[in-house]
Amino acid sequence: MPLCEADAWIRRAQDRQNKLTKPPGSLGRLEEIANQLCAIQQTLEPVVRNPAIFVFAGDHGVCEEGVNAYPQSVTGQMVENFLRGGAAINAIARVADAELHVVDVGVIGSPSRNPKLLIRRVASSTRNICREPAMSAGEASAAMRVGMECAENAIRNGTTVLAIGEMGIGNTTIASALCAALTDSDPAAVCGKGTAADGAGIPCKVDAVRRALALHRPHIQTPLDLLARLGGLEIAAMCGVCMEAERSRCAVLIDGFISTAAAAIAVSMNPAVRDYLIAAHESTEPGHRVLFQSLRLRPLLQLQMRLGEGTGAALAIPIVRAAAETFRRMATFESAGVSESSA
Amino acid sequence: MPLCEADAWIRRAQDRQNKLTKPPGSLGRLEEIANQLCAIQQTLEPVVRNPAIFVFAGDHGVCEEGVNAYPQSVTGQMVENFLRGGAAINAIARVADAELHVVDVGVIGSPSRNPKLLIRRVASSTRNICREPAMSAGEASAAMRVGMECAENAIRNGTTVLAIGEMGIGNTTIASALCAALTDSDPAAVCGKGTAADGAGIPCKVDAVRRALALHRPHIQTPLDLLARLGGLEIAAMCGVCMEAERSRCAVLIDGFISTAAAAIAVSMNPAVRDYLIAAHESTEPGHRVLFQSLRLRPLLQLQMRLGEGTGAALAIPIVRAAAETFRRMATFESAGVSESSA
Repeated sequence: MPLCEADAWIRRAQDRQNKLTKPPGSLGRLEEIANQLCAIQQTLEPVVRNPAIFVFAGDHGVCEEGVNAYPQSVTGQMVENFLRGGAAINAIARVADAELHVVDVGVIGSPSRNPKLLIRRVASSTRNICREPAMSAGEASAAMRVGMECAENAIRNGTTVLAIGEMGIGNTTIASALCAALTDSDPAAVCGKGTAADGAGIPCKVDAVRRALALHRPHIQTPLDLLARLGGLEIAAMCGVCMEAERSRCAVLIDGFISTAAAAIAVSMNPAVRDYLIAAHESTEPGHRVLFQSLRLRPLLQLQMRLGEGTGAALAIPIVRAAAETFRRMATFESAGVSESSA
Repeated sequence: MPLCEADAWIRRAQDRQNKLTKPPGSLGRLEEIANQLCAIQQTLEPVVRNPAIFVFAGDHGVCEEGVNAYPQSVTGQMVENFLRGGAAINAIARVADAELHVVDVGVIGSPSRNPKLLIRRVASSTRNICREPAMSAGEASAAMRVGMECAENAIRNGTTVLAIGEMGIGNTTIASALCAALTDSDPAAVCGKGTAADGAGIPCKVDAVRRALALHRPHIQTPLDLLARLGGLEIAAMCGVCMEAERSRCAVLIDGFISTAAAAIAVSMNPAVRDYLIAAHESTEPGHRVLFQSLRLRPLLQLQMRLGEGTGAALAIPIVRAAAETFRRMATFESAGVSESSA
């Protein structure tokens, strides 16, 4: 059986890795990431060019259930904060030398008038999953298209690494519901404290997720059903970015629990998406590990962060850049006149 | 009892962390690093400025014992490779926007004529620890002074974060001996495959470390005795960087197993050094974890690297920069008009 195309690129990349002036394998996960970039970009000259971070913001009807530590108005307030440059993701995007794009796919209230905001509202908030589907299939598809178009535009402008992040009060509950449904897990095993200071709100979340699953599971036949009934607008948009990343052969860095849930839905729609994903950071949410295991992904970073906004994905950009740069720029044993191992 | 100065700065920094537009603690280890930088720099405006990576190169007499996977000439060949920009550390230093300094403290053969090389030879190689002390106390002190001067010059030029790395064929055996002596560990528990492709050479290393410990332990009274008898010139230089970092209030990123051994000796000379150390990366060498435990340090990265050269330390620079930048640049809940948690 002939090797598939990706395997052939990875084998070629590995052959080159073994010629570079370092003991074979000694760059650890950087070698794995460089090889993956070679397979994605179909080259032995992988580059991290114009990395683009997309932060999608949307509100969630499930907030009616009292699952969240912050008032729902914080979604829009944080969008304004992103646009003014005062959030964590602004500082980290600058450090990573990456462009930040903020996209409103369904925040409650009047949208910010800041011209930097991409207003692509599909609805004003989702509906409460404990009572009805979060979105119609049409709304979910439209939000996916927003993500696809964002990715497509960035790739057309030369981006070779996308990063996704989100803002949406209530969305760890939504991600927990998606995770439980995707991996057939007990809600109690995947609900965490989210952005709260302690775990006092977890039983309320578990209860909301149980009720939502009981209501919707009989009606979920396809990944789009799952996304529409239990998901969120920003999650659908991130799912769209992942779908487009595969279609256009572009790596995509996934951030926290919520963006990983979006990526997992994309993989359930098209398993080929998986090879384009780079897991940036493992958050402290218990469901995040469950999703990584189900996707067979290993995160690059474990820094006990639990903020979202794309902060974990942005932090991993310099590591991905280092993987590409070592691969492309290092001398070979032969070119540098360095003796090879005798062992 | 009044809080000591460092604790007071960390408390002030934590107070500010809690006002920034993120759930308290949600930046995880970035918050811890930012607080540490505040304590080191005695400010609530910590900066990562002109990060400087020092790679010290030295040869090792213990290579006579056949402990190494690569011929000893590779030390000098890799120094040349660093100077020409063909090594992993060159690519990663560029990504980290850090300046790389290569210092020859005792490489066998004629030194490179490349004007970028800092030639500070204290001896031509150490001696074989299985037969005699690696260095005299005077040589060890002189090599420490080299590191101190390098750090002092960088700090005078505005550097606020130092990073240390090394090149020296045979030096994982030396670091294993130092680790076993410092932590009273069995050599078999701390010797790993080093840069070799497999573990075939480990028994030879364990045997060499056992013989060296038996020979020198009765004569080791002070940390300087330990450094001189079982250490290396590049290890002494890195130890000097750590000592100077404490004296001049500068953070220092430690890299792999060998640089961590150097840092551990510095801490045994002056326990106050510990608060200036940032553990960048945990390598696959088993002794590395033993040293981290003994120093009560937790590495930022675990990327299965085992190369040295300062590669792990350099990779962590953007993370340390992100820690400082989020702390300095983020808006507060009040300034951004974002509602605080109700939980």
